[in-house]
Amino acid sequence: MKTVPFSLSDVQNWTKEYPTPFYIYDEEGIKKCVTDLYKAFSWNKGFCEYFAVKALPNPAILRLLNKLGCGTDCASEPEIILSEKSGITGKKIMFSSNQTTLREYEIAVKSGAIINLDDITHIEFLENAGLLPETVCCRYNPGKFKNTNEIMGHLYDTKFGMTYEQLKEAFAILKQKGVKHFGIHAMLASCCLEEDYYPRLAEEIFSLVLEFKKDLGIEVEFVDLSGGIGIPYKPEEKAVDIFAVGEGVKKVYDRMIKDNGLELAIFTEMGRYITGPYGYLVTKALHYKHIYKEYIGVDASCCDLMRPAMYEAYHHITVLGKETNEAVGKFDVVGSLCENNDKFAVDRKLPHIDIGDFLVIHDAGAHGHAMGYNYNGKLRCAEFMMDKTKNIKMIRRAQTPKDYFATLDIDKEFNF
Amino acid sequence: MKTVPFSLSDVQNWTKEYPTPFYIYDEEGIKKCVTDLYKAFSWNKGFCEYFAVKALPNPAILRLLNKLGCGTDCASEPEIILSEKSGITGKKIMFSSNQTTLREYEIAVKSGAIINLDDITHIEFLENAGLLPETVCCRYNPGKFKNTNEIMGHLYDTKFGMTYEQLKEAFAILKQKGVKHFGIHAMLASCCLEEDYYPRLAEEIFSLVLEFKKDLGIEVEFVDLSGGIGIPYKPEEKAVDIFAVGEGVKKVYDRMIKDNGLELAIFTEMGRYITGPYGYLVTKALHYKHIYKEYIGVDASCCDLMRPAMYEAYHHITVLGKETNEAVGKFDVVGSLCENNDKFAVDRKLPHIDIGDFLVIHDAGAHGHAMGYNYNGKLRCAEFMMDKTKNIKMIRRAQTPKDYFATLDIDKEFNF
Repeated sequence: MKTVPFSLSDVQNWTKEYPTPFYIYDEEGIKKCVTDLYKAFSWNKGFCEYFAVKALPNPAILRLLNKLGCGTDCASEPEIILSEKSGITGKKIMFSSNQTTLREYEIAVKSGAIINLDDITHIEFLENAGLLPETVCCRYNPGKFKNTNEIMGHLYDTKFGMTYEQLKEAFAILKQKGVKHFGIHAMLASCCLEEDYYPRLAEEIFSLVLEFKKDLGIEVEFVDLSGGIGIPYKPEEKAVDIFAVGEGVKKVYDRMIKDNGLELAIFTEMGRYITGPYGYLVTKALHYKHIYKEYIGVDASCCDLMRPAMYEAYHHITVLGKETNEAVGKFDVVGSLCENNDKFAVDRKLPHIDIGDFLVIHDAGAHGHAMGYNYNGKLRCAEFMMDKTKNIKMIRRAQTPKDYFATLDIDKEFNF
Repeated sequence: MKTVPFSLSDVQNWTKEYPTPFYIYDEEGIKKCVTDLYKAFSWNKGFCEYFAVKALPNPAILRLLNKLGCGTDCASEPEIILSEKSGITGKKIMFSSNQTTLREYEIAVKSGAIINLDDITHIEFLENAGLLPETVCCRYNPGKFKNTNEIMGHLYDTKFGMTYEQLKEAFAILKQKGVKHFGIHAMLASCCLEEDYYPRLAEEIFSLVLEFKKDLGIEVEFVDLSGGIGIPYKPEEKAVDIFAVGEGVKKVYDRMIKDNGLELAIFTEMGRYITGPYGYLVTKALHYKHIYKEYIGVDASCCDLMRPAMYEAYHHITVLGKETNEAVGKFDVVGSLCENNDKFAVDRKLPHIDIGDFLVIHDAGAHGHAMGYNYNGKLRCAEFMMDKTKNIKMIRRAQTPKDYFATLDIDKEFNF
């Protein structure tokens, strides 16, 4: 059973001051997750988690992660600014972008971030601008990849990374142009719950490391396993054992890297895994509607959490105070957007819900608030960090109409 | 062939001052569209188009539409404010919301807007708050609806509107509670290119009008045919002949309403139809990438136009200056978001594209900029209105990092 680390009375207290909907992040949950991750990879000297800022771009989160030793994975100027303002600078930033503008590359190179190249043509693009740094990472896309249960053939259709031939050519060119420090990055799965994903990926990349050492005389200094580790959105799914993952990577590392007298740092970019399970969207039941189906209308909408609308993603829902009540039927839990895909749940078995009940939408801590939008004039909600005593602290205020109008001049004729 | 009402040299001029990407709206196109719509329904005394603000929530657009006689269809406080600041007030606002909060109802009722009830339970909800107005519209969902080519069975799965039995009961209750003016609203299709959709819908609603007159003694004063009229996104599709639509509704009206000695106003809510074809997203080719497929990387992303990512929607693309060039292959046109669904086109036949070429993404005038978001720290782009001399005027500035950080306190600890 999926549980919530706060109670109905906590929410009743909080809503005296703050209206629903809002996000709650469980600081202790995030801390433990990151601490365990670092323990699992403690065997690797240079290990670093580069938290994918796009999952949860909030400086309070980034400051916490900074204290725990993490860097950030960034893809835009605002993400770099957020990182730097949160104390994460220089090589603790991995700039992993694609279709990058020259301006963004200038900002990233100037910040001292590690530059991760998505395409071989970007070498010339950077060189022509005098921006080629001493440390370069390249993103690899092998086209296909055999995971335990499936062949990830969709990699042929993804826009990311370089082919094997391009990667090798890129490294040769980069070496010839004076680049001194090399890394390899690959993300070959998304939301994967199989514990051997990282070990198999490591094996795939380590073989390139050995080959590039032999053929090109390049010693790759770091391997970025990127994201891809999933979380159990559904109650019947099992969380990844991160210690088993770390141990699995260690075995491959010892055999392929250590035993060959080499050494390199392992990096990860686990946005979803680190904050996903520890973020909760709290919303209130406003209306019960009975037409051809049964609907519970809530005060959050897909403007607060887009994943169900865009990906038909499952997010578990707990009705606070009714955690152990029997389901009384199937309901669509819907928001107020004038779009029929604004549904947090479809045909979900739920207990009897009274108007005013608080519903908690689980696993909203990554790609949740971050994907919020203002369609239909919906204003984005606030975010709170909850400490171990269940005290909450606002870490982002809710938008006001003034925010919504910020790029307009609604009181005058338009004179920008 | 789909054409663009501006040329390469126009864009070259504009980009001397304003960086891509940006939206261009063709003022003359919108004017002609609305003028034709009003001509097509000129036989109906009270005809009014309530432009769906969510399609293009920009006061410059709303002011133009106000001058042309339109009202607005709103669903939130910011949309009501935008309308009022644009000169559209009182009964020229249709408040068509669902899962509405009490606060939003208070704002809408206070504004004097026509209140369109999505559910029968909202009567009591409003009455308990002393908010039941003298004019009420109710939204109808018949469950199924026979259009020319398909039975719209999906209506059983939509969260909107009341069943037939509920609608009739709602009208009886509303009359008993002293409501004096009645309307019926229904939206039973989306993006429909069949010219008999409105006439068939009118027939469906007019039969209720006659029945409610006979059984309840209620004279419905307006019928809101809502949206649903589509636009030809694909080159092989044909635009709806709005005069044929108007004539079709007139025939049904004459037979069912006029010949029965009745009179009522026809309303429409055509966001997409009015601004969709007259909005263009202008973007620049940044990179050409060849891996397992061919990619053109552009400086816009799905944060600027989400429809292809969310709905797999087709948007035609014109390469400026190469309008008549032969296609040289199939390309994915992709943005820079770290999401593989950030593709404006997949396997699209396009002419040879040089880096720096301007690509125009068609039919982006509705649900385009309005659905923009800030994922990956992407900043939302500017909007311009183009007059008939090809002069452009900024009607929304681009976001800056400061806008992105507005709800955060990134320089201090958090003290909201």
